[in-house]
Amino acid sequence: MKIYKSTEAPSIRRSVEIGTLEQRKAVLDIIEIVKTSGDDALFAFTKKFDGVELEKLKVTETEIQAAYEEVDDELISIMREARENIRVYHEKQLKNSWMMTQSNGTMLGQKVTPLDSVGVYVPGGTAAYPSSVFMTVVPAVVAGVERIVMVSPPQKDGTLDPVVLVAAKESGVKEIYKVGGAQAVAALAYGTESIPPVDKIVGPGNIYVALAKREVFGVVDIDMIAGPSEIVVLADDTAKPHEVAADLLSQAEHDPRSSSVLVTTSIQLAEAVQQEVEEQLKTLPREEIARESIDEFGAIYVTENLEEAIEVVNELAPEHLEIMVKQAQECLAKIKHAGAIFVGRYSSEPVGDYFAGTNHVLPTNGTARFSSPLNIDDYQKKSSVVIYSEEAFKQNANKIATFARSEGLEAHARAIESRLKEEQ
Amino acid sequence: MKIYKSTEAPSIRRSVEIGTLEQRKAVLDIIEIVKTSGDDALFAFTKKFDGVELEKLKVTETEIQAAYEEVDDELISIMREARENIRVYHEKQLKNSWMMTQSNGTMLGQKVTPLDSVGVYVPGGTAAYPSSVFMTVVPAVVAGVERIVMVSPPQKDGTLDPVVLVAAKESGVKEIYKVGGAQAVAALAYGTESIPPVDKIVGPGNIYVALAKREVFGVVDIDMIAGPSEIVVLADDTAKPHEVAADLLSQAEHDPRSSSVLVTTSIQLAEAVQQEVEEQLKTLPREEIARESIDEFGAIYVTENLEEAIEVVNELAPEHLEIMVKQAQECLAKIKHAGAIFVGRYSSEPVGDYFAGTNHVLPTNGTARFSSPLNIDDYQKKSSVVIYSEEAFKQNANKIATFARSEGLEAHARAIESRLKEEQ
Repeated sequence: MKIYKSTEAPSIRRSVEIGTLEQRKAVLDIIEIVKTSGDDALFAFTKKFDGVELEKLKVTETEIQAAYEEVDDELISIMREARENIRVYHEKQLKNSWMMTQSNGTMLGQKVTPLDSVGVYVPGGTAAYPSSVFMTVVPAVVAGVERIVMVSPPQKDGTLDPVVLVAAKESGVKEIYKVGGAQAVAALAYGTESIPPVDKIVGPGNIYVALAKREVFGVVDIDMIAGPSEIVVLADDTAKPHEVAADLLSQAEHDPRSSSVLVTTSIQLAEAVQQEVEEQLKTLPREEIARESIDEFGAIYVTENLEEAIEVVNELAPEHLEIMVKQAQECLAKIKHAGAIFVGRYSSEPVGDYFAGTNHVLPTNGTARFSSPLNIDDYQKKSSVVIYSEEAFKQNANKIATFARSEGLEAHARAIESRLKEEQ
Repeated sequence: MKIYKSTEAPSIRRSVEIGTLEQRKAVLDIIEIVKTSGDDALFAFTKKFDGVELEKLKVTETEIQAAYEEVDDELISIMREARENIRVYHEKQLKNSWMMTQSNGTMLGQKVTPLDSVGVYVPGGTAAYPSSVFMTVVPAVVAGVERIVMVSPPQKDGTLDPVVLVAAKESGVKEIYKVGGAQAVAALAYGTESIPPVDKIVGPGNIYVALAKREVFGVVDIDMIAGPSEIVVLADDTAKPHEVAADLLSQAEHDPRSSSVLVTTSIQLAEAVQQEVEEQLKTLPREEIARESIDEFGAIYVTENLEEAIEVVNELAPEHLEIMVKQAQECLAKIKHAGAIFVGRYSSEPVGDYFAGTNHVLPTNGTARFSSPLNIDDYQKKSSVVIYSEEAFKQNANKIATFARSEGLEAHARAIESRLKEEQ
């Protein structure tokens, strides 16, 4: 891990990954074929990409019960506790419909309603992530979404990972389909014979899933286009090097393109962390991935003072930010852009990945500048409500008609004036 | 306007407009050229598409002052009153940062911050819509966005419409550039020599603008992809036919592809409105547009009862919904999907377009199933905050490590366990 003075730092923000032209064209083709051929296309793509010939897409209740037999009871009990923490935190975010009343008798407000249906994408491949199932499904349940659908690519033997099935059942998923990739996204957006379409697609996936989500955005809603994971640790000389190093490596092990950055006011800490990272890397099972990530996208920035360190963090707008400094509260107040902020020694980032209750689906790649962690607002929408009074109407009708006419919209003006005519 | 029994109604939802492949390729090219050639590309495209050779893009304070000379004082005064109503309604939506505390000493919450910068697109062409400037800019000001930029295509003489300039100044825009189309969207997303990039692009535009917004989504945030305007009037025999007809036509005059639909339990009202629409059409200045819209996308559905009428409305998920029935309150409660809901005779839809204070940038084309009117949440974002206590940590560390190991993420488990080691 290289140490830079913040003034000599290379440009830190990575460009936003949007796939190659070839990948985008491939995704467009897949979507088109699913739109026209439905289930047939899903079976064919599953054979081609996942190497398995399925007879049906939908997971049965029997398969789910069988999955419970294979999963450790202690793990199920931990998952249930995590689920409850996620539920409590997300319930706090629920919005009420509201109305403001005016002295002229008018009422204006927002009516808040849940989405009817949501589709959750769960990646397959080498690792199964039941925690992501909870993070995407529990907020939907809390928001009151009635139909919650999960899709995930089947393993070579035609099954889904049992832990993922148990997590789906425990979190409140109603329908599960064995299909992944861009074809799963297309099916959720447009529907097929066996998969009715949903209103929104959430959850992380590989580049093809990300591109397909962006492609169907507008037809349905999507949560975000997630890139590789990132962590920034903001620390001073009160932080413990072995803890900082361990937290940096917890992101680095995700993906060779993950990014782990330390921003510190202490050159001593910088050097100690640098050494600790090297030491700890050696014994990691995912050493190769983590080392590539640290070499390519890891960095230590040493700043003159805390103000400058905070500036660097806001410039990075990281997915995860840990604050391990004496003046933690001041720092928290001054941070403008970060997906999730972990304050203090005991707020190690995996606490939030698995257990605290906050969401781990977070904006990456600097998009914390304009977007939020997955949250209840992703599963609810608002309608404006206008209940205009006769008094307010008569007082303002001419103004409204004048404004409309100034824009050349005569029928708008006449709609208002039709109420001023003699009763008919 | 044709009358249907709701059971024999043709499929009502229109497909979501996403442009032809040719249009999409053209937009991709424009974006690429702006990314590589910056201002030069903007000048060239402005010459090509808007037919004017500009010397600079940025509007000067002198030009804004000159615009005030050309705009009627009474109109400015009406616009200011509308702006205040918009401000008041959107201030009610402001969210606070919050924290929940747990008995084990842990605190979890959300920190709410405004976006740093927003770009507002304002269409040019035949009609200037100062009302849209207020709708997109005032909520940004209320949310605390520091840098608010406006772009709009220049007229043939190289100027912007004076009313639009006055609306920009009155609403709080800080920078204005004479550039429109996909090239303006690309400039806002990637920046050029004279236009620094923004974090989010909002506001309506033509198909090229919509496609470009979708293309840059992810690099920056966007509000929505808006289609042609729509209104559904839900009415019983207490509604007045000439008022219903006038409201239907107020949407029809926007665009030949606008959609105006009456859903009613009363065949008498259906027939009377049908006749009124024909009558009123004849004297409209934009008769041709309105007639094409009514013929192509207008319809009257007569339902057996109010329940069925509400079902039809929820199926349509209209941009604008007017409720003119005796049991208005029950109806309002049962409506699930609509952008803006106008209740009662005096809540004619143009009241909301111009004056009441609610936003007129609304989800179209059935997207009210999953999206909301433009609102304060579009200009604010949240960061999760985790302040985990020593007590909570020690109680749950082993569970978190177990969960992490079950996902094969050893470095996550070790990050947790590093805190349990002897002090170093």
